[in-house]
Amino acid sequence: MDGIVEESAVGYAKNAWYMAAWSSEVGKTLFARRLLDIPVVFFREEDGTLVALEDRCPHRFAPLHRGRLINGVVECAYHGLRFDTAGTCVHNPAGDTIPPQARVRAFPVCEKHHIAWIWMGKADLADPALIPDFSCIPDEPGECANIGNYLHVRANYLLEIDNLMDLSHVNYLHHGTLGNDSMRGHKVKVHEEGGAIHADLWMPGTTAPIYSPLYGQHCDQWTNMIWMAPSCMRLDYGVVSPGEPAIQQPEDVAVHILTPETGRTTHYFYGTCGVFGTEQRELAEMIRAAQTAAFVNEDNPMIEAVDENMGGADLWSLRPAILSSDVASVRVRRAIEKMIRREREATSDEVVGAEAVVA
Amino acid sequence: MDGIVEESAVGYAKNAWYMAAWSSEVGKTLFARRLLDIPVVFFREEDGTLVALEDRCPHRFAPLHRGRLINGVVECAYHGLRFDTAGTCVHNPAGDTIPPQARVRAFPVCEKHHIAWIWMGKADLADPALIPDFSCIPDEPGECANIGNYLHVRANYLLEIDNLMDLSHVNYLHHGTLGNDSMRGHKVKVHEEGGAIHADLWMPGTTAPIYSPLYGQHCDQWTNMIWMAPSCMRLDYGVVSPGEPAIQQPEDVAVHILTPETGRTTHYFYGTCGVFGTEQRELAEMIRAAQTAAFVNEDNPMIEAVDENMGGADLWSLRPAILSSDVASVRVRRAIEKMIRREREATSDEVVGAEAVVA
Amino acid sequence: MDGIVEESAVGYAKNAWYMAAWSSEVGKTLFARRLLDIPVVFFREEDGTLVALEDRCPHRFAPLHRGRLINGVVECAYHGLRFDTAGTCVHNPAGDTIPPQARVRAFPVCEKHHIAWIWMGKADLADPALIPDFSCIPDEPGECANIGNYLHVRANYLLEIDNLMDLSHVNYLHHGTLGNDSMRGHKVKVHEEGGAIHADLWMPGTTAPIYSPLYGQHCDQWTNMIWMAPSCMRLDYGVVSPGEPAIQQPEDVAVHILTPETGRTTHYFYGTCGVFGTEQRELAEMIRAAQTAAFVNEDNPMIEAVDENMGGADLWSLRPAILSSDVASVRVRRAIEKMIRREREATSDEVVGAEAVVA
Repeated sequence: MDGIVEESAVGYAKNAWYMAAWSSEVGKTLFARRLLDIPVVFFREEDGTLVALEDRCPHRFAPLHRGRLINGVVECAYHGLRFDTAGTCVHNPAGDTIPPQARVRAFPVCEKHHIAWIWMGKADLADPALIPDFSCIPDEPGECANIGNYLHVRANYLLEIDNLMDLSHVNYLHHGTLGNDSMRGHKVKVHEEGGAIHADLWMPGTTAPIYSPLYGQHCDQWTNMIWMAPSCMRLDYGVVSPGEPAIQQPEDVAVHILTPETGRTTHYFYGTCGVFGTEQRELAEMIRAAQTAAFVNEDNPMIEAVDENMGGADLWSLRPAILSSDVASVRVRRAIEKMIRREREATSDEVVGAEAVVA
Repeated sequence: MDGIVEESAVGYAKNAWYMAAWSSEVGKTLFARRLLDIPVVFFREEDGTLVALEDRCPHRFAPLHRGRLINGVVECAYHGLRFDTAGTCVHNPAGDTIPPQARVRAFPVCEKHHIAWIWMGKADLADPALIPDFSCIPDEPGECANIGNYLHVRANYLLEIDNLMDLSHVNYLHHGTLGNDSMRGHKVKVHEEGGAIHADLWMPGTTAPIYSPLYGQHCDQWTNMIWMAPSCMRLDYGVVSPGEPAIQQPEDVAVHILTPETGRTTHYFYGTCGVFGTEQRELAEMIRAAQTAAFVNEDNPMIEAVDENMGGADLWSLRPAILSSDVASVRVRRAIEKMIRREREATSDEVVGAEAVVA
Repeated sequence: MDGIVEESAVGYAKNAWYMAAWSSEVGKTLFARRLLDIPVVFFREEDGTLVALEDRCPHRFAPLHRGRLINGVVECAYHGLRFDTAGTCVHNPAGDTIPPQARVRAFPVCEKHHIAWIWMGKADLADPALIPDFSCIPDEPGECANIGNYLHVRANYLLEIDNLMDLSHVNYLHHGTLGNDSMRGHKVKVHEEGGAIHADLWMPGTTAPIYSPLYGQHCDQWTNMIWMAPSCMRLDYGVVSPGEPAIQQPEDVAVHILTPETGRTTHYFYGTCGVFGTEQRELAEMIRAAQTAAFVNEDNPMIEAVDENMGGADLWSLRPAILSSDVASVRVRRAIEKMIRREREATSDEVVGAEAVVA
């Protein structure tokens, strides 16, 4: 396995912005979520500033989210230690000197596009300019907006990326709902641009799928999926009458953002980018229901069955048969593996450096 | 542990026919069952021919049984690859050359005595002549026949074999149902014949058990259990008035066939060999109910408790106290261990041969 | 990890008396409980003498507690082997010589203070004089006594000891129930006396907690926790009007006794030492309910969350921040670790000795 593991996506890229939550999920009370195998507690300061701390008291390892928030300071429910937003212990109820170990990790966080982002690697590398571009989400998406959706998936996050980066599955797994026979056999075009990997599927002369106003009619359609490191995807799609110009409508954009919870479970955040006020409540609800039904009834059971069938093994160790339709998902996996490898090399360089100093 | 493992039944004998299912369980739709830790999907071709394929698409490891059957070809529900009855990929929806890895294992299968048999070892060794003899099951067992029963057991299959090959347990675990005090203390006679291991228990001058028409009367009775590799058993039994000739009636035969699902779970197939038409429905149902009650309420809880108490350890590593009543079960275990050891030696010979070629 | 493990409480001290059950839990029928990862079956002989045997038949590893008791002899439900109170096989239903392996461990047991004690280490070291002193439990505690309580906890027993030996948690985890603000910040005094570790908390000029008759009034109060090896605790507490002599009332004593079930689960026995006849039923029930509510609703969820957050890791390997309030729990952990280390050294001395003999 050794050689394989080196090449594989075992572990996580850590020096990257992961979606921790929708901004709306976190308020002024303690909110817990496990990310990349680490328990994290979130809250907002009085002025709304987001804070993320390791959710494990360094004293006796109680989850801090069971405690309470006192003026922006978290008090552990077990023995009363208090931590400020930097993770520093600011109150030792035992009254003695605060030991140096009495601190929790504070993670860099940043809010942008209604999303709370977290950086779980080296804090000094956490540059907000690196946050994946989700400006497709409107600043004012309306009271009935179809963003803010969440699913918990019992599968490794890379299997969910594989699913999204190869939309040829739509015509099988979602046959009759999102896909149909006419949409089969179109070749995906993959290109890389500024670190993002694009998988463009142009399907001229096909039948419009059920979610389109042109449903059942002859049409040209496209689904262009864009991956941004580490595990964020945006889908630009469209359906037009044959020969009409294929102009991307800003509301025909969906977001699919994944964050590993553990090696076998994933947080799946999704939504669409239309602006929906109260007068579009029905339409928005219909979109949300259709999307969720497809994910819950069709994608999730399959992805979880794949995870179970793989038994936790790395994809490459099972020597999959790779098709041309896999090109985008393979490139994404290789990109993530490269990130992980580089981080490890950087770490071992540091260790070597440190050893040299010791020697 | 090393020395012990070598002697023990860790792993499975693979070059052998295992019962996969009752013939009646498999129709023209996809039927999934895990056998010897391998997921398998079964179906019948139009002409009824049985097919068994590995239930894991070589592309992205989706369970094939979630797909559909199109003219004897299985289509994967995830991305649409199709496999014929030999496991060969015959359709790549991506349109490009089919990669050589795009094939699933097709397992030799054979139907005989209303049973679907599978060979999970080296396919070229799969000789139908080696199928265990269950000609005791009548060709036409009647509409109400008591064959075709199935139980799922949460225990290693060898513990179930131990149970069946030492019927002295009947007088304790099934006391008052299948056994009684008078049946205790009779010595089992064990002999081997053509690879089968026979455990004959002759109990003269005893009281007839509850399932006999002579119930409660003085009688001579016998239970002769026959093991056939790898994990198939047949029970010939009888009850006669004292001194009457002990003639085996063909309907007084039960079958007990086991197939490992995993190392800690077992498929248990059982039934009796009488011919029962609709006019014997009540009798047949009574037999089925009594048998199932004994297995479900008495054997299974004990066997599962033993498995739990052993915690997955090999029997020999726990140094059991062996009694004379264990002689048959120990011989069966040793026979299975020998099969496994020989398979391993054959494999390592091949490897050595291959290495010699390379050198 | 190696160095850490050596220093840590991995494993159990075995040469010690553990509480197996309240005397009232064991009658003349077979009673099963797993202790220190070993299944044990208990029963009483006709004269009431307590017996503890390994709950695993040496023949085929059936749990003996599924069997039956015949004149002080246990008959295995599977194949009928019988064991006397010394664990010796006294009946082999197969009729042949009883093999030497056909015996189960009989554990030294002793009843004292309404408690059934068990010794799971070397039997020849089992001196009843070493039984922890729970003479605080009255011989005649009354019909409505609040002893005999039991909780099953999904956490390592050391985490429960940590909880009990640092009562500063009362003012946070039990704030409003057992604790209040005035009780914070008092320094624990720790001393060792005859192998017992005392953690005395004297809280003058505080507000009486809810369980005291002086509830809400100004008072002096104390909670003195005493640990006795291996995992037994006694709590002496009291509340008096300010300046009154702090005289310990014999009824203001609670017992908290832990026994590991497995490495991640614990038997928790508790109660108070007042004498309650039928006329104090209401008071006794109130105390029992309040105590149980605090443990079930406040302590247990926290301790189980800590166990989960630690993921089975040894405390020291996680480098906890140690406060002055931890001094008693750390001393107890070190005392237990020392017991384990000494037992291991004694065992390896014996092994070395045996090797010398062989050589």
